[in-house]
Amino acid sequence: MAMTVSPTEGDSIAAALDVIGDRWSLLVLRGVFRGTYRFSDLRDELGIASNLLTTRLCRLVDHGVLEKVPYQQRPQRFEYRLTDAGRDLSPVLVSLMQWGDTHRSDGEAPTVLVHGECGWPIENITRCTTCHTSVDATDIRKQDARKQDML
Amino acid sequence: MAMTVSPTEGDSIAAALDVIGDRWSLLVLRGVFRGTYRFSDLRDELGIASNLLTTRLCRLVDHGVLEKVPYQQRPQRFEYRLTDAGRDLSPVLVSLMQWGDTHRSDGEAPTVLVHGECGWPIENITRCTTCHTSVDATDIRKQDARKQDML
Repeated sequence: MAMTVSPTEGDSIAAALDVIGDRWSLLVLRGVFRGTYRFSDLRDELGIASNLLTTRLCRLVDHGVLEKVPYQQRPQRFEYRLTDAGRDLSPVLVSLMQWGDTHRSDGEAPTVLVHGECGWPIENITRCTTCHTSVDATDIRKQDARKQDML
Repeated sequence: MAMTVSPTEGDSIAAALDVIGDRWSLLVLRGVFRGTYRFSDLRDELGIASNLLTTRLCRLVDHGVLEKVPYQQRPQRFEYRLTDAGRDLSPVLVSLMQWGDTHRSDGEAPTVLVHGECGWPIENITRCTTCHTSVDATDIRKQDARKQDML
């Protein structure tokens, strides 16, 4: 009989998924990346129930991905901003968007992301840190792996 | 009263999350990327209940991310292999792993991924398609955006 144990130990993918491994958390993050910082705005934009949004925001704050920043006194009110660790999740969201553009849209990307400095489109790639070649999934190995792993 | 409506329309992140936006689906994909192709092996390795694994595999097959490939006749048995669309999810998993290495491990990456051809570590980056600069989250804009969006 299989037990539903968390296979987190010693694995960074599982560890990351413990923080952001559900659809709502990733949609909340997408909202904050796009400039929606306040509880009521996130709730209305996503159409998420308040209790679900509260648990997601608390978990993202607890794990240091978002931080609460006051924007009003009396009554005190907060908005949710990305921490440095939160901003580092940008490649996860950009790679999800890129996959959706390629495989889930009808040929045209609904949103084009560009490099702010020069205005041309950006792309997410996996590359070799040494030869700088863009590396395909089939050419990724575990260091010291005996069999052909792609992760 | 907020309704839990899917904000998928015209958005590639939400569209991607409709396919792989839950922890188990991403852990199943991680398993297949690492060379675990059979139902019983995935179940035992992940410690996932059979019914949960069945729904995840069916959805991944239905959406063209995995395909069933027979490996035995009488009785016929299948294993689950990545399609081209499935292999294109590699950057999502690599970027999750990279974030976990940086923010959820104690300074040392549990698994080092290397470029098969030259043996040096790989990295996932977002870069400009034109000037090829590595682009930080704070320097990503929507094309024609009026406000400062980062996605």
